[in-house]
Amino acid sequence: MKRVMLEVAYDGTKYCGWQIQDNGETIAGVLTCELERLLGEKILLIGASRTDAGVHAMGNICVFDTESRIPGEKFCYALNRSLPEDIVIQRSCEVPMSFHPRKRKCRKTYEYRIWNADFIQPFNRKYTYFVYKKLDTDKMREAASYITGTHDFTSFCSIHTVVPDHVRTIYSTDVITEGNLITVRITGNGFLYNMVRIIAGTLVRVGLGDYGPEKVKEILESRNRENAGPTAPPQGLTLMKIEYAGEE
Amino acid sequence: MKRVMLEVAYDGTKYCGWQIQDNGETIAGVLTCELERLLGEKILLIGASRTDAGVHAMGNICVFDTESRIPGEKFCYALNRSLPEDIVIQRSCEVPMSFHPRKRKCRKTYEYRIWNADFIQPFNRKYTYFVYKKLDTDKMREAASYITGTHDFTSFCSIHTVVPDHVRTIYSTDVITEGNLITVRITGNGFLYNMVRIIAGTLVRVGLGDYGPEKVKEILESRNRENAGPTAPPQGLTLMKIEYAGEE
Repeated sequence: MKRVMLEVAYDGTKYCGWQIQDNGETIAGVLTCELERLLGEKILLIGASRTDAGVHAMGNICVFDTESRIPGEKFCYALNRSLPEDIVIQRSCEVPMSFHPRKRKCRKTYEYRIWNADFIQPFNRKYTYFVYKKLDTDKMREAASYITGTHDFTSFCSIHTVVPDHVRTIYSTDVITEGNLITVRITGNGFLYNMVRIIAGTLVRVGLGDYGPEKVKEILESRNRENAGPTAPPQGLTLMKIEYAGEE
Repeated sequence: MKRVMLEVAYDGTKYCGWQIQDNGETIAGVLTCELERLLGEKILLIGASRTDAGVHAMGNICVFDTESRIPGEKFCYALNRSLPEDIVIQRSCEVPMSFHPRKRKCRKTYEYRIWNADFIQPFNRKYTYFVYKKLDTDKMREAASYITGTHDFTSFCSIHTVVPDHVRTIYSTDVITEGNLITVRITGNGFLYNMVRIIAGTLVRVGLGDYGPEKVKEILESRNRENAGPTAPPQGLTLMKIEYAGEE
């Protein structure tokens, strides 16, 4: 028996998120089905991040245990032959049996992309949130600076969040502009349900001038979801990478 | 009566190219249909570039004549309301009745994108040509330098090319690398049928080491399509812009 880790990239457009569910196709569902077909065993896939419907990933992480003799680093080749073209394994390797992708300390990086132009751009329409009113990115950058640090993020998580501890540490929050594309890049030790999308929705409100950048500090301190901006739409969000201590 | 110019961006993935044809949906077909519905007139759309099936555009140009009182610069808003999300008008304006997008001198810029990595990237899979063998971009850059200039491009056009004159002037041929993405950007006064895709296919052959960069000079001089590389697949190609003298 060995434990194998997969680094998975996917275009989440047509999936009902990561986690297997009864009604609708999911990333974990497709991966489990292909692994079981490949290995002829029942597989339990444990994912690091249960991304929502429509959210993308460049490097989500998952593990499974198998009796197979296929070397860990060969699984990517074997799986990519049969996976649909919107789910691609970028890397695979064997990890210690004790490795659990949600219980081990890590740094996660998300990017939320906004297309700020007069019109939609047909190529990135499935990977950006289109905002036609001009956003003030200097103000968004100032607002983002309040997010960085260790805070109680109750105001920035869905009221459906089930975990009791809402304190997370955000290492960096950058607002990067390239032409009409605005990317909010956030790295932290963990994220609550809908947290990046609510932060993005709030930064857009600041960019539109609905409130000043310093309002973000007040919103954080209020610990009340109602004070933050709306949850920005899923297609703008991509889980970029998950880094574990001692792993690359 | 006035002549209106549209600058059109499209994701060509699901279309049978620009030009209206009997079997299959085309960009010009969809635009003509939406214009006729909007204006209640018969419309003849004249396009600058008849892009092939699966080829994309950031700024293809077309014109049509109309009796409508809608100001030229408002057509983009009116059309974008009803167009499918993979065709988006980026700009519209009135032009002189004498303006013909194929008869006027212009500079066209194409980009051909290659994803050179171990695995496909799910986000750009529809906009790149995936090559997993490592390409030598320095050699591709050297080979590209032979393309720039005024040459007879018989070796680099489809044998189905109908125009008799195969001499074109290429102002620049750049090979740009950003991580695993290789972009071949070509600007010229005109392009023959399949010309950019055959140039890209030939540069890939050079990048793979199948022949040296200086072979491109020989291929050009031979004026024989059989000597050049294969026609690279359509999804890597995007018509970036068309610039007319005296316009912008």
